[in-house]
Amino acid sequence: MSDLRLGVCYYPEQWPESMWQADARRMREMGIEQVRIAEFAWSRMEPSPGQYDWGWLDRAVETLAGAGLKIVMCTPTATPPKWLIDAHPQILAVGADGRTRAFGSRRHYDFSSPEYFEAAGEISRRVAERYGQHPAVSAWQIDNEFGCHLTVLSYSQHAVQRFRQWLAKRYGTVKALNEAWGTVFWSMEYRTFDEIDAPIGTVTEAHPAHRLDYRRFASDEVVRFGRMQVDIIRERSPGRAVVHNFMQLFSEFDHYALAAHLDAATWDSYPLGGLEEAWFDAETKARWLRTGHPDYASFNHDLYRGMSRQPFWVMEQQPGPVNWAPWNPAPLPGMVRTWSWEAFAHGAGTVSYFRWRQAPFAQEQMHAGLNTPDDQIDLGGHEARQVADEIALLPATLAQPRGTVALVFDYASKWLFDIHPQGADFNYMRFAFEYYSALRSVGLDVDIVPQDAPLDGYRLIVVPSLAVVSEAFASRLAQSDAQFVFGPRSGSKTESLSIPSNLPPGALAASMPLRVWRVESMRPNATLDVNYHGKPGTARHWREFVDLPADASVLSTYPDGGAAMIRHRNLLYLASLFDEATTRAVMHDAARAAGLAVEQLDDGVRLARRAGLTFVFNYGESSYAVPPDATLVFGDGQVGPQQVSVFRPAASRVELNQDAASVAAS
Amino acid sequence: MSDLRLGVCYYPEQWPESMWQADARRMREMGIEQVRIAEFAWSRMEPSPGQYDWGWLDRAVETLAGAGLKIVMCTPTATPPKWLIDAHPQILAVGADGRTRAFGSRRHYDFSSPEYFEAAGEISRRVAERYGQHPAVSAWQIDNEFGCHLTVLSYSQHAVQRFRQWLAKRYGTVKALNEAWGTVFWSMEYRTFDEIDAPIGTVTEAHPAHRLDYRRFASDEVVRFGRMQVDIIRERSPGRAVVHNFMQLFSEFDHYALAAHLDAATWDSYPLGGLEEAWFDAETKARWLRTGHPDYASFNHDLYRGMSRQPFWVMEQQPGPVNWAPWNPAPLPGMVRTWSWEAFAHGAGTVSYFRWRQAPFAQEQMHAGLNTPDDQIDLGGHEARQVADEIALLPATLAQPRGTVALVFDYASKWLFDIHPQGADFNYMRFAFEYYSALRSVGLDVDIVPQDAPLDGYRLIVVPSLAVVSEAFASRLAQSDAQFVFGPRSGSKTESLSIPSNLPPGALAASMPLRVWRVESMRPNATLDVNYHGKPGTARHWREFVDLPADASVLSTYPDGGAAMIRHRNLLYLASLFDEATTRAVMHDAARAAGLAVEQLDDGVRLARRAGLTFVFNYGESSYAVPPDATLVFGDGQVGPQQVSVFRPAASRVELNQDAASVAAS
Amino acid sequence: MSDLRLGVCYYPEQWPESMWQADARRMREMGIEQVRIAEFAWSRMEPSPGQYDWGWLDRAVETLAGAGLKIVMCTPTATPPKWLIDAHPQILAVGADGRTRAFGSRRHYDFSSPEYFEAAGEISRRVAERYGQHPAVSAWQIDNEFGCHLTVLSYSQHAVQRFRQWLAKRYGTVKALNEAWGTVFWSMEYRTFDEIDAPIGTVTEAHPAHRLDYRRFASDEVVRFGRMQVDIIRERSPGRAVVHNFMQLFSEFDHYALAAHLDAATWDSYPLGGLEEAWFDAETKARWLRTGHPDYASFNHDLYRGMSRQPFWVMEQQPGPVNWAPWNPAPLPGMVRTWSWEAFAHGAGTVSYFRWRQAPFAQEQMHAGLNTPDDQIDLGGHEARQVADEIALLPATLAQPRGTVALVFDYASKWLFDIHPQGADFNYMRFAFEYYSALRSVGLDVDIVPQDAPLDGYRLIVVPSLAVVSEAFASRLAQSDAQFVFGPRSGSKTESLSIPSNLPPGALAASMPLRVWRVESMRPNATLDVNYHGKPGTARHWREFVDLPADASVLSTYPDGGAAMIRHRNLLYLASLFDEATTRAVMHDAARAAGLAVEQLDDGVRLARRAGLTFVFNYGESSYAVPPDATLVFGDGQVGPQQVSVFRPAASRVELNQDAASVAAS
Repeated sequence: MSDLRLGVCYYPEQWPESMWQADARRMREMGIEQVRIAEFAWSRMEPSPGQYDWGWLDRAVETLAGAGLKIVMCTPTATPPKWLIDAHPQILAVGADGRTRAFGSRRHYDFSSPEYFEAAGEISRRVAERYGQHPAVSAWQIDNEFGCHLTVLSYSQHAVQRFRQWLAKRYGTVKALNEAWGTVFWSMEYRTFDEIDAPIGTVTEAHPAHRLDYRRFASDEVVRFGRMQVDIIRERSPGRAVVHNFMQLFSEFDHYALAAHLDAATWDSYPLGGLEEAWFDAETKARWLRTGHPDYASFNHDLYRGMSRQPFWVMEQQPGPVNWAPWNPAPLPGMVRTWSWEAFAHGAGTVSYFRWRQAPFAQEQMHAGLNTPDDQIDLGGHEARQVADEIALLPATLAQPRGTVALVFDYASKWLFDIHPQGADFNYMRFAFEYYSALRSVGLDVDIVPQDAPLDGYRLIVVPSLAVVSEAFASRLAQSDAQFVFGPRSGSKTESLSIPSNLPPGALAASMPLRVWRVESMRPNATLDVNYHGKPGTARHWREFVDLPADASVLSTYPDGGAAMIRHRNLLYLASLFDEATTRAVMHDAARAAGLAVEQLDDGVRLARRAGLTFVFNYGESSYAVPPDATLVFGDGQVGPQQVSVFRPAASRVELNQDAASVAAS
Repeated sequence: MSDLRLGVCYYPEQWPESMWQADARRMREMGIEQVRIAEFAWSRMEPSPGQYDWGWLDRAVETLAGAGLKIVMCTPTATPPKWLIDAHPQILAVGADGRTRAFGSRRHYDFSSPEYFEAAGEISRRVAERYGQHPAVSAWQIDNEFGCHLTVLSYSQHAVQRFRQWLAKRYGTVKALNEAWGTVFWSMEYRTFDEIDAPIGTVTEAHPAHRLDYRRFASDEVVRFGRMQVDIIRERSPGRAVVHNFMQLFSEFDHYALAAHLDAATWDSYPLGGLEEAWFDAETKARWLRTGHPDYASFNHDLYRGMSRQPFWVMEQQPGPVNWAPWNPAPLPGMVRTWSWEAFAHGAGTVSYFRWRQAPFAQEQMHAGLNTPDDQIDLGGHEARQVADEIALLPATLAQPRGTVALVFDYASKWLFDIHPQGADFNYMRFAFEYYSALRSVGLDVDIVPQDAPLDGYRLIVVPSLAVVSEAFASRLAQSDAQFVFGPRSGSKTESLSIPSNLPPGALAASMPLRVWRVESMRPNATLDVNYHGKPGTARHWREFVDLPADASVLSTYPDGGAAMIRHRNLLYLASLFDEATTRAVMHDAARAAGLAVEQLDDGVRLARRAGLTFVFNYGESSYAVPPDATLVFGDGQVGPQQVSVFRPAASRVELNQDAASVAAS
Repeated sequence: MSDLRLGVCYYPEQWPESMWQADARRMREMGIEQVRIAEFAWSRMEPSPGQYDWGWLDRAVETLAGAGLKIVMCTPTATPPKWLIDAHPQILAVGADGRTRAFGSRRHYDFSSPEYFEAAGEISRRVAERYGQHPAVSAWQIDNEFGCHLTVLSYSQHAVQRFRQWLAKRYGTVKALNEAWGTVFWSMEYRTFDEIDAPIGTVTEAHPAHRLDYRRFASDEVVRFGRMQVDIIRERSPGRAVVHNFMQLFSEFDHYALAAHLDAATWDSYPLGGLEEAWFDAETKARWLRTGHPDYASFNHDLYRGMSRQPFWVMEQQPGPVNWAPWNPAPLPGMVRTWSWEAFAHGAGTVSYFRWRQAPFAQEQMHAGLNTPDDQIDLGGHEARQVADEIALLPATLAQPRGTVALVFDYASKWLFDIHPQGADFNYMRFAFEYYSALRSVGLDVDIVPQDAPLDGYRLIVVPSLAVVSEAFASRLAQSDAQFVFGPRSGSKTESLSIPSNLPPGALAASMPLRVWRVESMRPNATLDVNYHGKPGTARHWREFVDLPADASVLSTYPDGGAAMIRHRNLLYLASLFDEATTRAVMHDAARAAGLAVEQLDDGVRLARRAGLTFVFNYGESSYAVPPDATLVFGDGQVGPQQVSVFRPAASRVELNQDAASVAAS
């Protein structure tokens, strides 16, 4: 059995039992080894309060297992049935508009509801007891896509009460809270924790520290809820991996914190829907319409790989057009294969397609599957079969990839800058992605890591922005001789969302002795011209006014002479956000300074290295030439559009790469 | 008396009684024969609960009748008075946001409120009893513009209770409902009808079948409410036409279903406000700013003519600038006359202007009338007088027009695609209009008909899209030798808003054996190039991937080779939506294939034929030459901008037209 | 002591007491003479109900006074503490969406709440009694920025009850109200005042007269609330000026009415944030990004000067970037000085910076101060010091400026046109500003006055639009021989928001005998070409169709020949809104006709005259040459970008100016 495995998501409850057998057989024929089931089946497991019906699920499990499939069983807690909601209406979450959400779709529950905590625990126990020891059950998924449809935050009375307890625990006394937050401003001082409400409905913006703590609290509630289920399952299903399927570029709760309790992080990969829903401008969306952005999936791969104890999975892989984005284009032929191989190249253990067959009814009827609703194999199904065949061409065991560059990604920074953007288009996620994309476009392999990750072994560490630079991070940084690149607003806040007493970059100033004494945010139509190594570029979104140490060198200036890029020893500080070409040049040079080999890739071409193999992916329209001295594992030497090739580089090139440090110059 | 009649909307309660006499006289002088009154006068009819005051209305009726005017009396149920609302606050509808709507404008009632059903019946009975047999009362309007200001849907407890009953009647058992909807998806299964709420407030989209049935239910409620009034009036006012004034391009309830209970369909024609509020882009809105789009009014004429037992009316004709669109331009001189004649040419029996005199107070004070607030005749008044004079130039009796082309328009398709658009700009109404406009631009007369209409006698039948193709329609189609043109998504859904088991085009596949195995929606900035008969064009909004029969011919392909237009025998299937010129060319060729004479008209010129006469309307800036052998009835031989001419074609040309089939080629 | 004084806003409660002494000393060193304190300090004055803590404030006052600073003490009523809200939740206002606003920011109170009226009075009495007679307390500010964050309107039960009383007082009988409003329209008639609700939540727009009266009522409530505090303070702090800090271009209540009770009007000047939040297009916002629009601050200066008994103040002057606009750029070096001097040139007595030091916590932590959070003098601080030095170069006593042009600004017109805009982009404030800007760009000094102001002494009176022309105004106009310029929609409404019986321009027709019989609003992409004195221009937004007297001259026409600009004796009527260049030319010529000297200024250069001195401000990029025969007081003879110069013109030029009338021609 290979380290690489294909899976699929299947809903036996949605199809006549008479189809199950053939479905299972055809899955196997397609090269699928694993099937996820039951994450939305509560109303079939427990059609009425306390009346369980396991018969159908038993038969489904036996049918699938009988065909040789491994099963990923799920807790069905993303969709509590109507009778449960009617019995406990307080389960429903409350929106920022004060309205209680309604039954009729999914995720209609409040993480802070004690009634739901109990009910979700009970159904989890029941499922775990029933199937926990079944030999075909190889893994568990808890719930489904925590936070989907913006369900992390609720403003119910339950949530507010738990928030007060959370605050009391965090601050001890309300006096400490008043001081930490700075509630003296605008007479917002509290006399007891019970006076504190949710930070909504205010006349103008609520207190930023209040908002930040509410988001922290809500994130902790998600983790608490997930952990409850993990514990229940571990006890009843020993030896099986417990996982959750995270979402792409989703940051409403601290994924590191939940992943710490899981065996593997998995995520749901929808490159086309993701492109359409993200911050990209219309031109970029049209450019990558039917392929997805070449760095979109891999950003998530590299992020989830970093937080996953076992090799991460793609739990749901887009197999064709989806139904939920503003526009829903069809992937170009070859892209389902490309996405699948890209996941494996970045370290995935499993790629599981969503879903086996397009359902002809309900909300997702326009969401493609590997098979069409009339049970013909769709394009995605054919490509999955091809991937299964190609897996056999690779060694059965593949070491996990390891990046030469670390990119520090921090959920709290996202929340801080959401709360205090200062400019309408300041978007932490976007900027982190732009740095990542620049690194990838020069052929680098990147690990995405939290700020408390060990940084040993990385030659280049890129920090798009780190709102709160901890003393611990600052001290690890001081001891490192790697190259560092910091984006603007690093160290600009304290834990309580205040400005550090020494001004930004706060604790970072120990190594990078700057003083950011003023900032401005910029309109999209009022960028500033800059120049980097003789090439014109633009500074956008954000500008910092910086006092710098005498021994710093200024690599780029604003039109008024202010420093826009500052190098101080092994640290590069970017006092703005730059256009794509400039960012790419900066990252290129930083990598060279770090002794890393770089390669200017054509637009749309990306490389990934795993276990001595190099994978080439072509999202664009040009063609990539595999080095003539390389050994092709599969694919063509000229990697055309929407194609994948895998090769083993000639030994000399590997060495060249490793020795690049000795010839690199900044 | 001519078949063509002018009318006006008049509000005696809004003016000093001393003005009534002169108003009535001046109406007659302007050539007006009919006056609509009292549709908003409830607070004057019944100033306090149960205390009726008919004196003023009696005097108004006598004054108008005395001047020789026929009266269209109204039920005043669009504006229940404050005392009624205060007595029964449950009359107010509830919005999708859960908020109860307030008194203070109009249409503040819930069609499902039993209190209002009773109160509206009672006032209708009172008015009908008082004026039902008055010799001057020639017709009745029930209520006013059902659904205006988006008032079809209410989410009150009353509505939800009636919805449950409606569901119980439709499905019999909740099991049948669960199966039809597919509630197993996301554990949305219901155990009783009482568990089912309105499909609002959900975390993500509510179940599409649930939403569709709610719209069907709400449509039925409107029909039920209207029919109640129709029955009351018929009983008390025998021999008078009972009508309702529908709105332009309004589709929130099934107009065919209500019209079936009426003697005539009437509609309110505001070409400039309509243009401004519709989907047209800014450039198109500027292009037709002061004329309206040349196909806008006529689309409505052709639609309402089709559902009207007696000749349809324009109940309210825009007489000058209105007040309710984002911008409110003034019609160019000549347009009020043009719009009036266009209505008659398309079969209207009455054109009634809204309103006699601009009111200087309240919400509509910036809405022009035939007279200015200081009682001078406004431009619209002068043009109305001209129309009255021109009516005298025509035969007194004019047969109804009959189109050579049928365009199938289907309210349910609008709802289905609203609920499941799949692309943010998918708009059934827009696409139906584009097909209609293409047909009109090549000089064709079009009947707009429901899918259950007889299709006999049409040489060309155009179906912009028919979400659910019934077996009955499919079988009539199979027996027809007319030319058919189908737009995309035809046959793409079942009655329960699912995908047909044979995939789209569902039942249509019996005649058009396609298999639409994939679709994609397209961003506005990512259209696809196509080519039709050597001319480049673009496919927009929507693309289908189609398996086709061997004997089909592909008339146009996508860049990847997929079929974009498919002909199979007498059926043409369009697998996308195309630019204006391509759509026009397609319709041109389809008409030729059907043996219809076509004429490439200049932008803005439109022709309509009624009773052997040809009417020319010029919305544009060029000039149209009446054939030299024609007999002019009125107007110039060169029809200039904003002008109308009517001519009787030479007999030879009429024959040529009728024989065109013999020479037509596809 | 000079007539010109610098001040600062300071929050002792936000800083360690240990810093106060140094802060006070450094203020004095910076040239600051006055300090505003305590407007948000309620929770420190009264930490618990009825428990007052004055100790800290006593010490702060003594520290500041001890350094020689004068104190502007405030009532802290903009931020009631949490305990007060919890005790009386009805204090919170209710939004148009029916939701009660929450505690947690500021201005969370309802002007109509009797509980808050009492509580605000009580705390005001307490503060006034404590500090009213303190020798260092030189002035009082009541509350803070009435209406900020759109808090004028509340829809609470308290507000509705008081609204009914207000209506009863205004109309006497409900019959009179029904007649004045015209409620017969749509059966909106009321039988008692108690039937009348707030004009919200209606199905379509609520009655315009209802909406207008609600706004009038709400404005009166603000004045009532403010006056209550003024009375309390006057009684307890005799001899001190009582002021309020108004906002820039804010029109939600009648500022003239509140100012009538104050000793001085003060306002808060944030030119960059204001630019970003106002109606300007993106290009204009980018053009003046770091300077503000050259007429933005001065419009406010000239407005507030007119309503202020004593010289007006800038209570809060932007000192650097702010935090609250969509984008927050940094002012160019020199702009803080420029803004300060511009205030003085326009008649300010005090310019007070907001704030002394940037607070590192809470909502406004990204709002600059004169000092950075780490207590270094920021750019703004250095410029303030420069201003203080320059003040010493001017005479100690400076007469107030007096404009040669009066621009009539009318809050009620704003409300009327907000309620009935007729075109989506009709914006009274914008159009008033455009006229003002045109006048300023030709070097004129403008007084902004209410319509009941005496007009004696002005040679040119410009009325951007005056919705309701009173008989009194019409009669003063008839007796004046000044030149008048009226914008469109003047005289277009009555007090009850109806159309005048003689049509617009209503009472103005006595002097300007027009009849505006039709209007149209225009899309932004459908402007009309016009021509003024041979130069092409465009008419935008609005067009009127006008009957004119035989002796009128038409200065410009629309493409269809209609009159676009009409002169009748000393009155010029503009029947549209025009592009910037055309408006400028019109104002130029009107000024010449009025005998005023005009000077075509480069884009961004502005002049202001006070007490025989001419002040030059350069917002642009060119350079302005001071006349060679002038005497420079300070600044350069060539006034460069972001520079200020002050000069005393040669006597001959002053005379030339005064005699210009004799040579002016229209």
